[in-house]
Amino acid sequence: MSRRLAIPGRVPQRVHIVGTGLIGTSLAVALAQQAVAVTLADASPTTAALAADLSGGTVGDGADADLVVVATPPDVTAAVVAAALARHTGAVVTDVASVKGVVRAELQAVGAPGLVRYVGGHPMAGRERSGAISARADLFEGRPWVIAAVEDTAPAAVALVKGMAEAVGAVVALLEPAEHDAAVAAVSHVPQIAASLVAARLADLPDTAVALSGQGVRDVTRIAASDPQLWTQILAGNAPAVARVLRAVAADLAGVIDALEALGPEPTGSVPAPGARAALAGAIQAGNAGHARIPGKHGAAPTAYAKVVVLISDRPGQLGRLFQDVADAGINLEELVLEHSLGAQFGMLELSVLPSVAAELRAELSRKGWRLHA
Amino acid sequence: MSRRLAIPGRVPQRVHIVGTGLIGTSLAVALAQQAVAVTLADASPTTAALAADLSGGTVGDGADADLVVVATPPDVTAAVVAAALARHTGAVVTDVASVKGVVRAELQAVGAPGLVRYVGGHPMAGRERSGAISARADLFEGRPWVIAAVEDTAPAAVALVKGMAEAVGAVVALLEPAEHDAAVAAVSHVPQIAASLVAARLADLPDTAVALSGQGVRDVTRIAASDPQLWTQILAGNAPAVARVLRAVAADLAGVIDALEALGPEPTGSVPAPGARAALAGAIQAGNAGHARIPGKHGAAPTAYAKVVVLISDRPGQLGRLFQDVADAGINLEELVLEHSLGAQFGMLELSVLPSVAAELRAELSRKGWRLHA
Repeated sequence: MSRRLAIPGRVPQRVHIVGTGLIGTSLAVALAQQAVAVTLADASPTTAALAADLSGGTVGDGADADLVVVATPPDVTAAVVAAALARHTGAVVTDVASVKGVVRAELQAVGAPGLVRYVGGHPMAGRERSGAISARADLFEGRPWVIAAVEDTAPAAVALVKGMAEAVGAVVALLEPAEHDAAVAAVSHVPQIAASLVAARLADLPDTAVALSGQGVRDVTRIAASDPQLWTQILAGNAPAVARVLRAVAADLAGVIDALEALGPEPTGSVPAPGARAALAGAIQAGNAGHARIPGKHGAAPTAYAKVVVLISDRPGQLGRLFQDVADAGINLEELVLEHSLGAQFGMLELSVLPSVAAELRAELSRKGWRLHA
Repeated sequence: MSRRLAIPGRVPQRVHIVGTGLIGTSLAVALAQQAVAVTLADASPTTAALAADLSGGTVGDGADADLVVVATPPDVTAAVVAAALARHTGAVVTDVASVKGVVRAELQAVGAPGLVRYVGGHPMAGRERSGAISARADLFEGRPWVIAAVEDTAPAAVALVKGMAEAVGAVVALLEPAEHDAAVAAVSHVPQIAASLVAARLADLPDTAVALSGQGVRDVTRIAASDPQLWTQILAGNAPAVARVLRAVAADLAGVIDALEALGPEPTGSVPAPGARAALAGAIQAGNAGHARIPGKHGAAPTAYAKVVVLISDRPGQLGRLFQDVADAGINLEELVLEHSLGAQFGMLELSVLPSVAAELRAELSRKGWRLHA
């Protein structure tokens, strides 16, 4: 953690971007807006020209670049990084692949030159659409950009990548490659698999059963709509770290199944298998503890906001009118969640506010005719 | 599904509620507001008296009730239902337990009298707080209320429970008891376990790793904050159905782990184990298919809304001002999601509107100085 403060960022002057898909082109657009000179290259000259048009950069070989960013698909990242290190002998080289250990391992395996000038990177940003045409300048704004440096990496190289990431609005985190891969396995790859496996169980349910879906299953399975091709690449690239976490999940799951089978078809009134009940409670408690680790707004621990729940009918303008009333009351909203109800023409909107103003908000909204839940 | 229309609801005249916790008392409050005469009983006379005070019902034995609602804790539900059937020989008896097969099985096992007058029920409503003091009249509004009738159940009995549920604003669904238990296992109990198991894996991560948590893991693990004691009861009561779904999840999970282990620490550029990649893609695709089954707003298929994403800074009044501007534009919002960014003093608010008005909303918000994402 101390390294985060130890190396101040330095914004590069001339950046050469290899690979002009969504990430590469968005980076070009964002850097060009910061008056950084950008050159672009791509296996497809047409795509490179489009990216140059979109960003204001120029197609070129980046011979005088101080920073080369490899933004190719992950399966060719290491080869392109090695070529860039050999060609741009005075430049720092970074990449944007979503796994970091395997890239460095292959660079070491092929004896890539100038490895002290290579800084692994992972901007944790993306969107549903891909390609240069979907690029946007604010893609990285407020998003984590992991810099996966190792002991040998030149501090000046880290400073340049950090400066670039911060120039496009990202929040830099310094992690070892293995730390990065373990982290994204737990906070990104395993949640994706869990969501997909739970959602898969809904496929064969009758309509009457899926109609009972509430907010819980909707939240758990939201990311199950993700792209299979993209996720196959991501998971395959981080296979050992993901498998490690999944084996722990599978062991926990086996424990839950054993407990449920020990309880069996339980008549009400009987209290069999107390150990089984303790195992179930333990699984839910362990989830409580893990959930509490997730940082809230602003990366801090979740704040205890007061919640005001308003019933919103489906008539036009209801939400607009409500927020106008909130604005009129001069109260700042911290969080909000809109929850729809099964088959009903209304939803419940949960407004989170600082506890000190909750009573005032309730009173004000009641006065204006809104129906509040207790 | 046809039974849903076949039996019209009939609102009961005199309802006797046994068990005055959150559900029983909320039902009393809601029914009293509909001019239904309510009597209340509880193992604790003090609690019954409180519930009567809160609801406007009266403490009594409900001798002339046409409907008895058993709202006790699940572990005594069957015994109390059996006693009510024996005592209230002219009344319909229903319950609110979150599992239905086990209650009916025990009633049959003890040879409870008048089983044609028993209609299993499950109002899918609740809140974080429990007890009579937390009761609210709108607890059931827009929520599913499952009626788990069987072939033998008297249609007039179903009609009375349906009428009561609809009178308090619930949306009635008719399911066989086993169908109900299988449904809630898949759409409620298994998602809870998945969320808890994924969250548990975060407990031992370093701070730098959990700091990379994005919206995906937040959604997947939101319900991992649930109460262990409550969930132990729920899971234990539906153990066979939950175990059945979890065994299928465990088999799928084993397949994913096998595929990841076959891929191993994969150097970029190589393409090993094509069967393993197909297995990963298949798991994500199966999740796509299941996710697509979940009904959207109003119980219908998800509507293709257009999304307008606005960058919200953390200055006071931003959200209020934004929604005032939306209201001024005369545009109705269909959905909204507020997403916070790691360590950043702002969030991204995703507004969903009908596609026909999206361009107008974008233009209007831009004109008022809001920063929009493409």
